[in-house]
Amino acid sequence: MAQKPSIPKGTRDFSPAEVAKRNYIIQQIKEQFEKFGFQPIETPSFENSETLMGKYGEEGDRLIFKILNSGDFLKKADAAALKQQDSTRLTPSISEKALRYDLTVPFARYVVQHRNEIDFPFKRYQIQPVWRADRPQKGRFREFFQCDADVVGSDSLWQEVEFVQLYDAVFSTLGLEGVTIKINNRKILSGFAEVIGESDKLIDFTVALDKLDKIGEEGVKKEMKEKGISSEAIEKIQKVFGLKGDFSEKIVVLKDILGPSEIGQKGIEELEFINSAITELHLSTAKLDLDVTLARGLNYYTGAIFEVAAPQGVAMGSIGGGGRYDDLTGIFGMSGVSGVGISFGLDRIYLVLEELDLFPQTVARNIQVLFINFGSRESLYCLKAIKELRAAGIAAELYPEEAKMKKQMAHANKREIQFVVLAGAEEMASNKFTLKHMKSGEQSSVNLSELVEKLA
Amino acid sequence: MAQKPSIPKGTRDFSPAEVAKRNYIIQQIKEQFEKFGFQPIETPSFENSETLMGKYGEEGDRLIFKILNSGDFLKKADAAALKQQDSTRLTPSISEKALRYDLTVPFARYVVQHRNEIDFPFKRYQIQPVWRADRPQKGRFREFFQCDADVVGSDSLWQEVEFVQLYDAVFSTLGLEGVTIKINNRKILSGFAEVIGESDKLIDFTVALDKLDKIGEEGVKKEMKEKGISSEAIEKIQKVFGLKGDFSEKIVVLKDILGPSEIGQKGIEELEFINSAITELHLSTAKLDLDVTLARGLNYYTGAIFEVAAPQGVAMGSIGGGGRYDDLTGIFGMSGVSGVGISFGLDRIYLVLEELDLFPQTVARNIQVLFINFGSRESLYCLKAIKELRAAGIAAELYPEEAKMKKQMAHANKREIQFVVLAGAEEMASNKFTLKHMKSGEQSSVNLSELVEKLA
Repeated sequence: MAQKPSIPKGTRDFSPAEVAKRNYIIQQIKEQFEKFGFQPIETPSFENSETLMGKYGEEGDRLIFKILNSGDFLKKADAAALKQQDSTRLTPSISEKALRYDLTVPFARYVVQHRNEIDFPFKRYQIQPVWRADRPQKGRFREFFQCDADVVGSDSLWQEVEFVQLYDAVFSTLGLEGVTIKINNRKILSGFAEVIGESDKLIDFTVALDKLDKIGEEGVKKEMKEKGISSEAIEKIQKVFGLKGDFSEKIVVLKDILGPSEIGQKGIEELEFINSAITELHLSTAKLDLDVTLARGLNYYTGAIFEVAAPQGVAMGSIGGGGRYDDLTGIFGMSGVSGVGISFGLDRIYLVLEELDLFPQTVARNIQVLFINFGSRESLYCLKAIKELRAAGIAAELYPEEAKMKKQMAHANKREIQFVVLAGAEEMASNKFTLKHMKSGEQSSVNLSELVEKLA
Repeated sequence: MAQKPSIPKGTRDFSPAEVAKRNYIIQQIKEQFEKFGFQPIETPSFENSETLMGKYGEEGDRLIFKILNSGDFLKKADAAALKQQDSTRLTPSISEKALRYDLTVPFARYVVQHRNEIDFPFKRYQIQPVWRADRPQKGRFREFFQCDADVVGSDSLWQEVEFVQLYDAVFSTLGLEGVTIKINNRKILSGFAEVIGESDKLIDFTVALDKLDKIGEEGVKKEMKEKGISSEAIEKIQKVFGLKGDFSEKIVVLKDILGPSEIGQKGIEELEFINSAITELHLSTAKLDLDVTLARGLNYYTGAIFEVAAPQGVAMGSIGGGGRYDDLTGIFGMSGVSGVGISFGLDRIYLVLEELDLFPQTVARNIQVLFINFGSRESLYCLKAIKELRAAGIAAELYPEEAKMKKQMAHANKREIQFVVLAGAEEMASNKFTLKHMKSGEQSSVNLSELVEKLA
């Protein structure tokens, strides 16, 4: 009769050890966010459907989880859609709410809704789960956390500079040295399309270019040709495919390629500003690199585009990304507000730290001492000591049952608790405690204040 | 054309100040949970519908938010239910998942699913949002956080003792002194029903008794009579209505009333054990009180029942509650596992702390210093200093735009930032910074190391 319990595919339970590790990463990110002047907000898990629908393209609309209206939802159902068995058309009439798909659209909605309370520029961070009805696969989940920091209401390129510093600060703090912060600019991509005379094919062009890593130069060229971009056009940006060297060297080549394009020149200018500031300010452990193939959500970004790659040798997609979008809040009727932001990929950062063994030993806040339970009188004696220990900031507990000694010690072992205290009739008579170090087996007889001291 | 943005009723946006206050409460609760040896777990926001449905009664089933299946959901829809326009019957065929309604059922599911990885007794805590399609009203939301601590796999009454201590520790830490931890026991209520010869009317009896506070003795008696409990029966427990005095005095009366009831005697024994332990161990600021009218989710609890009342003078419902349930995991086919747990009411605790002005001044982690932006060269000079400040743990930022001085100062004022730094050509020439205290207006000229020192 019993149900065999399971969870929906693409979702996860997190054990105590996993929660501790996840919280460790989140805590480090939060601390840097706050040091950089970002303030936390939180938005509801579900939004009105009209807030989300149409904001992520057709594919996005399909991947949004919709919440069924409560009660007798069929009463208000679209009769025609029902009759024609048209699920898509029926949906708006039986579902008014949907789960958050990302943190950016809810943030835009928040800014517009609370515009009168906000003093711009507004630097906010938000760390909350989002949901996508995507096909689950390795590293891709239907519920996952996003960790976003954005600034709205400032066109200043200093924001981009600060975001590069922020990435560096977070990954350095996590001990993840040697990440590459890749930067590009939408204006560079527009410039390319312009100089080859294919501005109307900008999307096709960049989607193909974005694949250079995966399918190589010939593959990219083939795809461009299939999209109707001529060989002569492609020839004009031949140098893009072989772009090498450090940031400044690449800039020199770009200046040559993009000479005739005003927007391209503007893109170069912005990149140079950011790079020279970062050169002056120094990064701790990260490296800033120019990657002109970087496109990400191109329809979205209007200026800088960021992506962070794990250190060399770690096979992992990007562990962060972001960029500037000139009209974040326009979708909600508040135009001319520029935004720029970055995101940290919690799940992937977790996997990288795990692979490189970078989680601190102390990340799981285990109790320090387990008191063995010898019976009622002894337990009370122990609980008095435990109370003092906790007041001194020491995590301690009493084994709840008067179980066999062996079982209690095994429990301490399994939970990797460092110390146990044994306090029976003898100890009680002399107001002492026997403190045992589990690993060494070493025992000592101590009074309460010595116990607090030893464990503090 | 623009959509006027809003959020679904019963949900909330949290501003930076609100997030900071909520996180402060959560952090205090978490720290005590961990000191007491509880370990964190997290479960998915949505569960398979069969995991949740039927676990909270008919009313609960209706209040669970269901997620519409993705894609062409009508394809698998129950044709008969569709034809009859039967929303309730249709639901299971178009919705396989549902949002978490509380943390207890997902915890039970977790325990059964991961039984082989868990070493019992298992003390877990969980702080996550839950969703209920309840009618929103003051203090009742459709999305809210629960903060639960539970132990499974132990019958020991020491757990109840520890939960009383835990409540005391959390509320004392929050500065919320004088809360009353009310305790009762299902066995006492069963005993009452037994001695009046109405064991089969236990639920009706306790539902009525639970209202003593609200409708008074006559009201309760009236309701009991309406439910078919005779005047003679009610007469037998007349003393319950006037129960007064401290814990021990009430126990004396209870012993008299429940003399003939074995289960009642067992309840008294358990209450006495807990009370005498707590008397020995002392509470810091809370008070333990026996409240025999306390029932809460009676169908659920089998032993102790807890509820915490705000300090006298604060008009607020319970700010915490819990109890023991002997067969937590039975619904998922793992029987004989006893659980006991308590919960903290985050939203209400928030309101109480607000009302009593108990949030620390420092709860919002604001930046300490804003650097005024005088232009590009000056900004770079400032960012070098800001980098040093952040490395020293000081939250600092540069105003992103070269805006008018007045506007930048107003921003600092609005955000209640304590200090601003002014660094123009003069300061740069002498490698100095002008540090201004916003409130006093006091200014001083300092070098970088003095700046770090002053702000640290």
